[in-house]
Amino acid sequence: MLPPWRSLLSSALHRNRSEPHSRYFQLATVTPEGYPSNRTVVFRGFLEDDHSSLKIITDIRSAKIQDIERQAIGEICWYFTKTREQFRIQGVLRLVKAQDEDADLLKARKITWHNLSDAARSQFAWADPGQPATGEGKKDAETRRHGDGENGNPTQNFVNPPAIDKSAFDVEPPDPNLPLDTFCLLLLVPQKVDHLQLRGDPQQRCIYQLQTDTAWSSQLVNP
Amino acid sequence: MLPPWRSLLSSALHRNRSEPHSRYFQLATVTPEGYPSNRTVVFRGFLEDDHSSLKIITDIRSAKIQDIERQAIGEICWYFTKTREQFRIQGVLRLVKAQDEDADLLKARKITWHNLSDAARSQFAWADPGQPATGEGKKDAETRRHGDGENGNPTQNFVNPPAIDKSAFDVEPPDPNLPLDTFCLLLLVPQKVDHLQLRGDPQQRCIYQLQTDTAWSSQLVNP
Repeated sequence: MLPPWRSLLSSALHRNRSEPHSRYFQLATVTPEGYPSNRTVVFRGFLEDDHSSLKIITDIRSAKIQDIERQAIGEICWYFTKTREQFRIQGVLRLVKAQDEDADLLKARKITWHNLSDAARSQFAWADPGQPATGEGKKDAETRRHGDGENGNPTQNFVNPPAIDKSAFDVEPPDPNLPLDTFCLLLLVPQKVDHLQLRGDPQQRCIYQLQTDTAWSSQLVNP
Repeated sequence: MLPPWRSLLSSALHRNRSEPHSRYFQLATVTPEGYPSNRTVVFRGFLEDDHSSLKIITDIRSAKIQDIERQAIGEICWYFTKTREQFRIQGVLRLVKAQDEDADLLKARKITWHNLSDAARSQFAWADPGQPATGEGKKDAETRRHGDGENGNPTQNFVNPPAIDKSAFDVEPPDPNLPLDTFCLLLLVPQKVDHLQLRGDPQQRCIYQLQTDTAWSSQLVNP
């Protein structure tokens, strides 16, 4: 049996399908230092096994990996602009890397890789994300400073940043049947869902919580 | 002197102005239990004093208040759908309540309140947000359970949730010159900005960091 919020989320996806950005949401994690971290990621569908875990993909070199390995809890904020409704989905994060021991999840990783576009797969062969861009000359590659008088015209550095080395991003599309080691499937297994509908008078808000393995409670709350 | 990322953000706001949701972003905080929390909030402009702190409003009865009083660090994720660019803005959160001792910030709070619509101001007179809706009958008000066989047809409860008591939300618009005590101005004072542009070949990403009170560094990094 599907969780009670699941059909609402499917309905929102359907009713907002004309807007490509309706498949993007924001994933918050906590850094090893205890600070909040927040980024936009793409919804890659529900896990085939349970039809309710949300699939995300990430590069194992991404900073969020450290967050998740330290604390595997995340909260998704998913705002649908057309129907004006928000789902806040808190859950357990599960990384599925190339070395995973769960055969079913490895299969899900492979399927997810296969379903990506060439462009999306190619990103996993790109230069190390988040690292200083290597296309900058040695001098330029140093951290530039603004507003402290070290540069004659610091703003100009910013307006015309040096181009990064395109060759590090101009790669052959990887084999659709062979996920790169940098490719990581990331699952969010929902535990709590806070659904807010801004349309309506008054707004409507309902909180769903996982009570046991499969049983969910629901509670209508004030918006 | 404005921070180097500031004109980029203004430009994004301008170029996405046709889409009302371009003034919404997701704010992540950390709960007292150490979990990530994430919600959509509305951008209320920059603080008049420094032109770079971001103004948000919140109800003092909102759950995020506890997060912020425990740890005043937040990260905004702001994705602009039209220009396909993202700003991740980490910074210090500052709550400005009715009892604040900073006269300038109290003035900013008053101005922000004054600039709201009647509808937005009225929300601060609504019933306690996040609390169980009182319009439910006693029996219905109990947390409903799904999928554990306790109810004959739990799904039906969900499809037709009891209406909440409208009278708790049908209030007279508050005085535009007198902020309610529940009204809180929330500032995010940026310390780090991660700007990603998905358009372009390859994508472009630059990280700005506050070095001293007014000096920012910038570093082009791999997307």
